[in-house]
Amino acid sequence: MNSTRNIISLVRRYSTSRSVKIASHGSPSTALKIENENITDKISNKDVLVEMLHAPINPADLNIIQGTYGTNVQVGGVAGMEGVGVVKKVGSGVTGLKENDLVVPSMKQHFGSWRSKGVWSEQQLFKVPSDIPTEYLSTISINPTTAYLLLNDFVKLQQGDVIIQNASNSMVGLSVIQLAKARGIKTINVIRDGSEFEDNVQRLKQLGGDIVVSEEYVRTPAFRKLISDLPSPKLALNAVGGQSATELSRILADNGTLVTYGGMSREPVTIPTSQLIFRNIQIRGFWLNKWFEQHTDSEKQSVYDAIFDLIRKKQFKLLIEKHKFSEFDQALLKSQQSGHGRKIVLDLQL
Amino acid sequence: MNSTRNIISLVRRYSTSRSVKIASHGSPSTALKIENENITDKISNKDVLVEMLHAPINPADLNIIQGTYGTNVQVGGVAGMEGVGVVKKVGSGVTGLKENDLVVPSMKQHFGSWRSKGVWSEQQLFKVPSDIPTEYLSTISINPTTAYLLLNDFVKLQQGDVIIQNASNSMVGLSVIQLAKARGIKTINVIRDGSEFEDNVQRLKQLGGDIVVSEEYVRTPAFRKLISDLPSPKLALNAVGGQSATELSRILADNGTLVTYGGMSREPVTIPTSQLIFRNIQIRGFWLNKWFEQHTDSEKQSVYDAIFDLIRKKQFKLLIEKHKFSEFDQALLKSQQSGHGRKIVLDLQL
Repeated sequence: MNSTRNIISLVRRYSTSRSVKIASHGSPSTALKIENENITDKISNKDVLVEMLHAPINPADLNIIQGTYGTNVQVGGVAGMEGVGVVKKVGSGVTGLKENDLVVPSMKQHFGSWRSKGVWSEQQLFKVPSDIPTEYLSTISINPTTAYLLLNDFVKLQQGDVIIQNASNSMVGLSVIQLAKARGIKTINVIRDGSEFEDNVQRLKQLGGDIVVSEEYVRTPAFRKLISDLPSPKLALNAVGGQSATELSRILADNGTLVTYGGMSREPVTIPTSQLIFRNIQIRGFWLNKWFEQHTDSEKQSVYDAIFDLIRKKQFKLLIEKHKFSEFDQALLKSQQSGHGRKIVLDLQL
Repeated sequence: MNSTRNIISLVRRYSTSRSVKIASHGSPSTALKIENENITDKISNKDVLVEMLHAPINPADLNIIQGTYGTNVQVGGVAGMEGVGVVKKVGSGVTGLKENDLVVPSMKQHFGSWRSKGVWSEQQLFKVPSDIPTEYLSTISINPTTAYLLLNDFVKLQQGDVIIQNASNSMVGLSVIQLAKARGIKTINVIRDGSEFEDNVQRLKQLGGDIVVSEEYVRTPAFRKLISDLPSPKLALNAVGGQSATELSRILADNGTLVTYGGMSREPVTIPTSQLIFRNIQIRGFWLNKWFEQHTDSEKQSVYDAIFDLIRKKQFKLLIEKHKFSEFDQALLKSQQSGHGRKIVLDLQL
């Protein structure tokens, strides 16, 4: 009897979590190591035991693994910036969370979401509503939030205004289209040419994109003619750099703002002097990590609420492709292929 | 008697003005034409007859002649954006000016200052004090005003703050050094290398420049070491573009602003994506013409007053080389040579 009770006790106090660790900084295909570790449910006062449900593979996650991101995650840390989990147990001093609550990272520091279970402090978690699909919740903190802030924090946009963006087929780009559409802001969307070009155009238009064109077309007089009856864009969103960013600056209205939030081409942002001096174009940058550092929980809550509200009204969709955590390698590979237009999300309990 | 009176009357009603006209857009050495024309002193109601005293040859004047500036002056117009003159006669409806007042262009539109006499409307003129040397007054509207606004309109600078600029040997650059010095702001000044490098370093230091280095030196670790005990610059002023502007962006403090007001290298402004995203560098532009369009006479007056005040206190010097208007060709040639560190000013009555 005694010995059986001891075994049961052991079983109850430890369970296994699978996690993807950064074993070295470099190519994601070789730098990561999948490890099993024991997680105790004897958690301390302020801690919360979370069973992770979903986590996306974001481009920023890959950059962190490569060691090329603005913040570093030490070797040995768990990869993954965002995700969603369900609270399994809370410490006696935890006041804001209870069992079965859904939580996402508070984004105040690197989270390490690519694992099936974890223990975090209450401050590292942020409660989210239960009526939003968990796949959506897992990707809410980075891409839709970035899109929302890009549209809100730089230029005062009103119904009928026009914006232009490149990388429009990314999840931020697709989010921008829908958030703009909901506000009556028109979008000019630039995407890469390629075999799936027509499918991409259709998808972006279905989501509400007003104009969808290729990077090459933007440089033609025909494009200028196409947009000639629209007001000039007050805001340009750049995640590419190089020639693509330069073109956006030329199309901006006088006094317009170009915001860079990514650099997919790995080329710098190059702006003709005349655009800066004679047309008063402003060049800014946006980094979500910094935004989270500098803003309160209630400011974050109101951004999330705005997005949740649109999701409930079916005005905001996320295109997601789920992969089992047990098939991580394929998911990682897929996430590195460009142009498939869907976010790869890990199903962490499978 | 009668016939003599008529002749005297003719002599009194007309006098000759020599002016430099833009005969075509192109190289200043071939595009300009010096013309004599009769100026009547029978001026209308709102007009003012001005005898011009001095006018500088600014780089922007050359760009206007070349047809590469943001505003165009039609072929046939008189060249020269700024200068100073003395009022010789006012129309009966003129209320703000009287004979012997000193005036500079109001800068609301192209002035055409390279002439010995001219008739302008009261609105095109702006009264300036008589206790400032007229050579200084002739160059006050563009270079010192630009320097003042670059230091005031973009970043809130306080005593002990640091700024960095390239083209520091230009008249704007020299003005920035002195205006910053008067406010207790430290300057890092980048100039081109060359035969007169040591002389230039000495001159800039005498005017109050804290650090003076060459474009090449800025890229070295030794430069980083040299500035390591200073606070990082909050503001960078760029009139060069290309690699020089890129280097300024790297040296800026996080959240710093790079303002472009010229593009001497004819290369665009190129900023690494990481500076924009992770360090929140902002890239802006400044165009004085636009500033004059958007600001009132009293705002302009207070900028001029601040500069006049420093001139009176001998805290602000302009390095000027005067040339006779009758030797315009040599003056023009001299103004196109770089690195002599003095502003070429035409003496329009000689």
